[in-house]
Amino acid sequence: MLAITEPTLLLDESRCRANIGRMATKAARSQARFRPHFKTHQSRAIGQWYKDEGVVAITVSSVKMADYFSATWRDITIAVPFNVLEIDRINRIDARCRLNLCVMYPATLEFLEAQLERQVGIWIKVDVGYHRTGLSEDDDCMDALMDMLADSSANAGKLEFQGFLAHAGYTYSARSVEEIVEIDTKAKDIMTRLQDRYSPRFPLLQISLGDTPGCSIIEDFKGVDELRPGNLVFYDLTQHSLGSCRLGDIAVAMACPIIAKHQNKLIVHGGGAHFAKDFLIDEEGQMHYGLAVSERGDDWSGGWGEHLNGLRLTLLSQEHGSLTGPPQALDGWQPGDVVLVLPVHSCMTANSMKAYTTLDNQRILHLEAEYPLAAP
Amino acid sequence: MLAITEPTLLLDESRCRANIGRMATKAARSQARFRPHFKTHQSRAIGQWYKDEGVVAITVSSVKMADYFSATWRDITIAVPFNVLEIDRINRIDARCRLNLCVMYPATLEFLEAQLERQVGIWIKVDVGYHRTGLSEDDDCMDALMDMLADSSANAGKLEFQGFLAHAGYTYSARSVEEIVEIDTKAKDIMTRLQDRYSPRFPLLQISLGDTPGCSIIEDFKGVDELRPGNLVFYDLTQHSLGSCRLGDIAVAMACPIIAKHQNKLIVHGGGAHFAKDFLIDEEGQMHYGLAVSERGDDWSGGWGEHLNGLRLTLLSQEHGSLTGPPQALDGWQPGDVVLVLPVHSCMTANSMKAYTTLDNQRILHLEAEYPLAAP
Repeated sequence: MLAITEPTLLLDESRCRANIGRMATKAARSQARFRPHFKTHQSRAIGQWYKDEGVVAITVSSVKMADYFSATWRDITIAVPFNVLEIDRINRIDARCRLNLCVMYPATLEFLEAQLERQVGIWIKVDVGYHRTGLSEDDDCMDALMDMLADSSANAGKLEFQGFLAHAGYTYSARSVEEIVEIDTKAKDIMTRLQDRYSPRFPLLQISLGDTPGCSIIEDFKGVDELRPGNLVFYDLTQHSLGSCRLGDIAVAMACPIIAKHQNKLIVHGGGAHFAKDFLIDEEGQMHYGLAVSERGDDWSGGWGEHLNGLRLTLLSQEHGSLTGPPQALDGWQPGDVVLVLPVHSCMTANSMKAYTTLDNQRILHLEAEYPLAAP
Repeated sequence: MLAITEPTLLLDESRCRANIGRMATKAARSQARFRPHFKTHQSRAIGQWYKDEGVVAITVSSVKMADYFSATWRDITIAVPFNVLEIDRINRIDARCRLNLCVMYPATLEFLEAQLERQVGIWIKVDVGYHRTGLSEDDDCMDALMDMLADSSANAGKLEFQGFLAHAGYTYSARSVEEIVEIDTKAKDIMTRLQDRYSPRFPLLQISLGDTPGCSIIEDFKGVDELRPGNLVFYDLTQHSLGSCRLGDIAVAMACPIIAKHQNKLIVHGGGAHFAKDFLIDEEGQMHYGLAVSERGDDWSGGWGEHLNGLRLTLLSQEHGSLTGPPQALDGWQPGDVVLVLPVHSCMTANSMKAYTTLDNQRILHLEAEYPLAAP
């Protein structure tokens, strides 16, 4: 039995494994490599659940994460433009781990060829409309990058060109499932044009795509070599609002002790330091940081239900939060009870909590608990 | 010299000590006890800088923090309604440390009298208009609480009544310095009425108040026994926007490597996982998560200036952020440079970063690095 005394991030392992399994199956059906993004869970133990589904390659979003996972994985892509200031750390990562870096500039390739003490895979980061990073398909420096990569290959250099990588992150602001399909179709079209243009010179070049909304909603990924969704491991209320998952697929919930009942609110221990501060605005224009699920109880060893109980997390201080709702939703709850709240953004919530507690009361560590300051 | 390779929270010790010293002096002038809130810095090392100013008593907002600081402090108030589920942890805290708990319910006092293995100070939490927690001054259970506290005292019980404690947290939504003064004056009036009503029975009862905006702006705290501001240790852009501090008083800045320059933006390593996600909306209605300060450089051993360079942190992903600004503000910055960004909410940023790097390159640990999962 779980004895909750402070904010605790519960993890339903069976839901989580089911989420992983569904996506692995879907990728296999399209003959695409499933290279899941591990920034969501950041846990070696949960990583093992992907291995159980046959996954052999992963994605991360910092050198620190690559360093951490290099202990247990042998093929890691750092899916953000490479930060040249971290070259020493890259060179220190276990040489038995294959690393793939993302690049946007000829100057970065030049720097890497000169400074690397190992071979690495190189992906060119492409902007497919999200406009966070990446080159547009007609960017002036695209040909220069290709020449340098061909040179490195011809001269037994350190850079092994892999292909084009993009993140269609603006699916997160889509207002319908149809719009998500449209965004991902456009992204795939851009990538396919690049592939067509450069494959005469680089016949093996690949396309890597994959945001969780697109990967969850679209069924057929024909023509895409690699899929990199991450959030699917837990899902959350944002994904649910986009249509990426059912409420019952959300695999994490924060257990929060109630410390006060005041002016038609429940005050819980559980604040910005635990949930982080991403919020959603619902159809009525109301914002919230989480929705409470299930009834009063003190035993969640069988998991939680799919019944939203009407309580919404509408205010977050550093350590505390306010749950509000219609009077009947507040009925019966008292200080000393524990309430479960589904998070708006599970990646950020997990990063803040630094650990998970499974329903059979096992603690699973997150990178931020194992190495709070720096990678091993 | 500081060698920045990843997001790093710089701390200017001299600004920080000056902030502490000014508030200590101000409290002393009003003959009020300065009991600073340590949730902002959560560091034993920075706590020492308060000791250097003669501070002997502190405030925290969780039992975990009380546990952590009990190693170095002998008088700690946990300034949130006590969570009865944490009674065991309270009983385990070093008995040489005086603890003060906040209470709103007769049932909690009854529980504490029965379950405590130590004496504690008791503050009654009062709602002075913020409506997060606390009793209104005319709450029905106020007299019942007083009777129970008088009983405990008469019968050598475990509960030592201290007085009334409130947090006028709605100064943070004030739109002018005058409004902050008005809010704090109203709070003090409520507390003084309570003191007048109950001091015939409890002649030693005290009043504890103190949000950073009020404590920074108001000069005279006559009649208030104790002040509990916390954010003043670092200040931040929120406090600056309220008029609580000068830009040059902000004692922390995030050093972020630039990893891309793209479509009139600089992309930095430094995202929601580092800054947390509090934001400000400026006078033109534009929101930001931080403002960049100072010019290009690679040596901040002398601290940073007070010159905002026009770059604003306008988008935060988990690991990355976008700095935008007028074309001339972007001029000259390149991938590989490091930019300094002042945080919107230093408490949450420090909690996310878990450590500080001083200008002479010393690392100072935060509770979340020393005990990422639980207190010692």
